[in-house]
Amino acid sequence: MKTSRGERTLRPSSIAKREAILDAAQAAFLAHGYDAVTMDSISRDSGVAKQTLYGHFGSKEALFLELVRSQTRGASERVLSEPPVVAPGDDARAVLAPVLREQLATVLAPNLLALRRLVIGLLPQFPDLARELYEHGAQRAMRSLAALIADLESIGALAADDPDRAAVQLNWLVMGDPVNRAMLLGDEAATGGLDIAAHVDAALDVFLAAYATPSASA
Amino acid sequence: MKTSRGERTLRPSSIAKREAILDAAQAAFLAHGYDAVTMDSISRDSGVAKQTLYGHFGSKEALFLELVRSQTRGASERVLSEPPVVAPGDDARAVLAPVLREQLATVLAPNLLALRRLVIGLLPQFPDLARELYEHGAQRAMRSLAALIADLESIGALAADDPDRAAVQLNWLVMGDPVNRAMLLGDEAATGGLDIAAHVDAALDVFLAAYATPSASA
Repeated sequence: MKTSRGERTLRPSSIAKREAILDAAQAAFLAHGYDAVTMDSISRDSGVAKQTLYGHFGSKEALFLELVRSQTRGASERVLSEPPVVAPGDDARAVLAPVLREQLATVLAPNLLALRRLVIGLLPQFPDLARELYEHGAQRAMRSLAALIADLESIGALAADDPDRAAVQLNWLVMGDPVNRAMLLGDEAATGGLDIAAHVDAALDVFLAAYATPSASA
Repeated sequence: MKTSRGERTLRPSSIAKREAILDAAQAAFLAHGYDAVTMDSISRDSGVAKQTLYGHFGSKEALFLELVRSQTRGASERVLSEPPVVAPGDDARAVLAPVLREQLATVLAPNLLALRRLVIGLLPQFPDLARELYEHGAQRAMRSLAALIADLESIGALAADDPDRAAVQLNWLVMGDPVNRAMLLGDEAATGGLDIAAHVDAALDVFLAAYATPSASA
């Protein structure tokens, strides 16, 4: 038996316990911060005996790492499970817009934003964890965009000498403002009133002015 | 006597003490995080008696708020003290590039990045503080860019229907990647190997492709 979290083979009751622990731990870390949460409090919140808790995760640190990893990997797998296939004659905007809309909506999920805040605040303590969030988050999104941009270049729909750089620019044209607002103003300020489709279209207006081939319709 | 921190009139010895407290507090908060620092530990680190500490700041929370405020206001005043004056015939890239280079260099100062991480991690506890960091940081930078873009539009160097939106896009074309790398990978990953002038030029290539008037040289 293999699950998305990659743990050893576990009986169903054990998997349910694991999920209950992770759910309780996430709620506690997000509500109270890392330092204020203890294995004792997670045991109480989840209704799982402390011995079982340690059997699953070993330490509060290991539990926190597993929690963030499972959340960020889950999100990046959802976004990139089916990257579009580019075919001759495809329009750059029609290919890129839905991918960007989905990436932005994923990044702005409240639980992920809250974990992102927590991980940024804990960078001095857990640099490897923040690095994972970067690699499974922005980096993975930008690589996926770079591959699409290269494909669009190969069919003549874009003229981008450096697809990696173009992908970084496109990513931050779309993500920069909402993510920064979310980090400092809270979820509601980032998502309330944000028309994701219009926001992505405005970013693509700028991007395509720079990178669309003259013959392609931008 | 009025100082940049806006405190009541203080004797010079009192000002020196205040600075010593803020310096010791900043070092402690950045090294250990907010929760781990106490007024006792700041008293020890700064060599200032606890009673004097409370006399100046009232509480650990008030001291932390004042610290972040003085740092973020100081940074935004440095950047925006002398915005360029746009004159007919000016070139958009020549006007915008030095402002963007200075804004990016300011944002990437290690102390400010570290405070930014701390404030993001503490958003649930101190939402007003994070809001101030937003208002004195990205928001002020984007307003200043919007004013420049409007000026450049008025002399025919740019064609931007919506200077506010263009400013947000330009800001994040420049700031998005370095700031996100700094938040999750640490200062060195954000600034090591970053050629600020080349990075700003590449962002302006994209921005001006979208917003330069056909007659203006981009």
